[in-house]
Amino acid sequence: MDLSSDLRLNDPEVYLRTYGRPHPRPELLGTFVYGVPELNRARLRGATRISGAGCIATASELALAPFLRHAILAKGDAIVDAKIGSSAAGARPGPSGHHPERAGAIRTYAPVGHRHEPEIAQALGGRLRIHLTATAVERVRGILVAAHLFVQDGTSEQDVLMALRESYEDEPFVRLVLARRGIHRVPDPRVLDGSNWCDIGFGLDRDSGRLVVMSAIDNLVKGTAGQAIQALNVSVGWDERSGLSFPGLHP
Amino acid sequence: MDLSSDLRLNDPEVYLRTYGRPHPRPELLGTFVYGVPELNRARLRGATRISGAGCIATASELALAPFLRHAILAKGDAIVDAKIGSSAAGARPGPSGHHPERAGAIRTYAPVGHRHEPEIAQALGGRLRIHLTATAVERVRGILVAAHLFVQDGTSEQDVLMALRESYEDEPFVRLVLARRGIHRVPDPRVLDGSNWCDIGFGLDRDSGRLVVMSAIDNLVKGTAGQAIQALNVSVGWDERSGLSFPGLHP
Amino acid sequence: MDLSSDLRLNDPEVYLRTYGRPHPRPELLGTFVYGVPELNRARLRGATRISGAGCIATASELALAPFLRHAILAKGDAIVDAKIGSSAAGARPGPSGHHPERAGAIRTYAPVGHRHEPEIAQALGGRLRIHLTATAVERVRGILVAAHLFVQDGTSEQDVLMALRESYEDEPFVRLVLARRGIHRVPDPRVLDGSNWCDIGFGLDRDSGRLVVMSAIDNLVKGTAGQAIQALNVSVGWDERSGLSFPGLHP
Amino acid sequence: MDLSSDLRLNDPEVYLRTYGRPHPRPELLGTFVYGVPELNRARLRGATRISGAGCIATASELALAPFLRHAILAKGDAIVDAKIGSSAAGARPGPSGHHPERAGAIRTYAPVGHRHEPEIAQALGGRLRIHLTATAVERVRGILVAAHLFVQDGTSEQDVLMALRESYEDEPFVRLVLARRGIHRVPDPRVLDGSNWCDIGFGLDRDSGRLVVMSAIDNLVKGTAGQAIQALNVSVGWDERSGLSFPGLHP
Repeated sequence: MDLSSDLRLNDPEVYLRTYGRPHPRPELLGTFVYGVPELNRARLRGATRISGAGCIATASELALAPFLRHAILAKGDAIVDAKIGSSAAGARPGPSGHHPERAGAIRTYAPVGHRHEPEIAQALGGRLRIHLTATAVERVRGILVAAHLFVQDGTSEQDVLMALRESYEDEPFVRLVLARRGIHRVPDPRVLDGSNWCDIGFGLDRDSGRLVVMSAIDNLVKGTAGQAIQALNVSVGWDERSGLSFPGLHP
Repeated sequence: MDLSSDLRLNDPEVYLRTYGRPHPRPELLGTFVYGVPELNRARLRGATRISGAGCIATASELALAPFLRHAILAKGDAIVDAKIGSSAAGARPGPSGHHPERAGAIRTYAPVGHRHEPEIAQALGGRLRIHLTATAVERVRGILVAAHLFVQDGTSEQDVLMALRESYEDEPFVRLVLARRGIHRVPDPRVLDGSNWCDIGFGLDRDSGRLVVMSAIDNLVKGTAGQAIQALNVSVGWDERSGLSFPGLHP
Repeated sequence: MDLSSDLRLNDPEVYLRTYGRPHPRPELLGTFVYGVPELNRARLRGATRISGAGCIATASELALAPFLRHAILAKGDAIVDAKIGSSAAGARPGPSGHHPERAGAIRTYAPVGHRHEPEIAQALGGRLRIHLTATAVERVRGILVAAHLFVQDGTSEQDVLMALRESYEDEPFVRLVLARRGIHRVPDPRVLDGSNWCDIGFGLDRDSGRLVVMSAIDNLVKGTAGQAIQALNVSVGWDERSGLSFPGLHP
Repeated sequence: MDLSSDLRLNDPEVYLRTYGRPHPRPELLGTFVYGVPELNRARLRGATRISGAGCIATASELALAPFLRHAILAKGDAIVDAKIGSSAAGARPGPSGHHPERAGAIRTYAPVGHRHEPEIAQALGGRLRIHLTATAVERVRGILVAAHLFVQDGTSEQDVLMALRESYEDEPFVRLVLARRGIHRVPDPRVLDGSNWCDIGFGLDRDSGRLVVMSAIDNLVKGTAGQAIQALNVSVGWDERSGLSFPGLHP
């Protein structure tokens, strides 16, 4: 189980373009199973080499994957606008994470060129052009991704819902957030601190054909360590939920 | 000077669709000058009826307008992803603004169907389809807008910069944020509290042709009251900067 | 089990002075066991009427109780300065909890006259004059209490430590925070969200004889619902820790 | 004008005890005027050597000084409980200021032994024993001090008010916050960001004789740079308010 970003990409050329240096052991690329159980459960069973997925990548892939299984999209472009807490920048102190500079920030540290872009594209089988933007906001834990998509004419909320249900109704760690009213009608990472849930919701503008899929996780759990445990549970055949029962806090 | 949203839209049909009820005085629509000096300075001079602009609308229009004056865009679609503080939801207490529910939120309260969408489209002369998404984040004041656009093949950073400079180099309240390095290389509303600045920056992915334009304001100043004073200054012929000299705080 | 403040005080006169109205059922006062297991475990066993304790009261009592069992204090006065998150003010929206007014506040809503003052004094057997001040700070959950005490001449850190150890070494939900260095050398409610822990630490100024005892809890768990479960577990003879295993989050 | 803490203390012995090393130029100690105009205006006029005051020290001294001019106190002890934002810890990144560790903290980094203790005692002429505790809370700018004092029997709110008014009614940068109701009835640094105000309020418990004096400042303005400008204005005979007109923001 490798939690770094070293072994997520399969193609040495893409690795070079993404990380700015050649991979030191290119023969290893492609030999690790990408550790997102919702995408790769069959391959994870019995796997002995697993690569953890990126945190923004995980949230994005879970937002997008259901719509590739259905001929619902009008275009092959997905604009993914991610908002993210400070813990995703790592534990090492530095100027950009210094509290007087970081508190209350809305800082788009990666308008373009984010390193998870090719990772997401690869995980989705290259069927979508991914355009990722990442913005740091005031939180310690948590990511909210908004994936902006355009659907085919005539697509209804029911169609979107069916795509989501089909993908996720048996998933132990994906919840659909579908309330019509109230504060909790959309996914929000603030209720996911410490949990392995990925909460997914959506909004559809039937006039313009724009579909916005929202996906929230705790980057330190479903985005890293929790998902690693989930993938490990799958690989060795244990109950996938072992060690991951914390439901989150509210408020 | 009307600061409400009553007199921003010109078309009674659009008003009805946007606000869900017919306008009580439709003959007034179109008789107020839309109060964004950067877009409407000539018409504001001597104007006796001015309508204030919406806060997200202001930030979005200032991000987008420069690219309509140049044949730089490949498509007529703009996806505008806005992040916004709690003061924009008004001074009246309610469940969604109650601190234990609102603190640390990343809550996409309007994935689609935001009321500023037609206002922005109208202010830009109907030349762009506006797709707006608004997310509440942890701040009291401030908006950051990311406008995702696609440019024509071969467009360079220099072309984008020229479009911005041409529009804004003489503007008293627009600053271009263009640093290559450091924490302050992108617009961030955290340094604008209390000021009338609109800070604008951008990122361009030449491979994919995506241009991300970021625009930051204090919603209570450039987004409402400060801009109203600026528009009033223009209308009566005073120095446009009168009463608006506060430069903001850091950190 | 009563979680309100109705049945905490034993004396109808004190109730009247504290809550500003006569108690409607004064014959009930004194018939409920005060539900802080660390103070009242023996009486809670088999109890059929239990009153929950106040959140600031709980943190304060756990900070102070050990020093009453030892002849360590020079005076009978305790100044208790409490800092507290927004959830303690209740779930009902109102002006003082409205996010634009509450965010980032350091607001001493009760400099004197806090209603938990007589509750703490009573729980400690009337052996200390309690002087309580409560300040709302930016957090949703959590309380940190600093109890300022004066000790007898010659009292050492070792004496303080012994008093704390004697009281709490067998307690399942009290931890002593005693590190000499590092960020985590003092109790801080930020690591206790969702947990039933009470973390206690201290600083002693041997020159002036001032002892500062710090006590941190999550007001919604050890300060209310969690402690109620703990008290219930004691009363019915179950494992005191049942249902209370969540260790908290970091960061 | 020296903004460091090098030249605040007059006594080399106290300096050694406070800072843990002998002063390298002890002959300089006592030759700088302590730069708090409210305490030292006469001596600042024409002064050519001024030492800036500490931020917590400033807030504490302004809370305490009025009660030394009146025979109102019953004891010579003042317990000062300070809450403070992250900018007071300096601009250099480090583990304790790293956002994932610092956000939402209520961390009593100095329960006893704070270095401003002897500075405050000296500034008040040695007439009070100062017992200082400092706690970091979630804010960037700002300090709120609560000074706990005991007054003589029979002291009324009117007596306290008179002491404050006499000291401060002509002060350009001290405001008394005396509202009986509402959110803004006590000093709160959240409305002082960027301003040179010191807001002072109080609560008196006539039964116990405890007086709590609250004092709020922006540590980066009245606590450092703003007060330095104010002191400089006094020393050279300019209008004391020059360059310090910013009134603060709300919300």
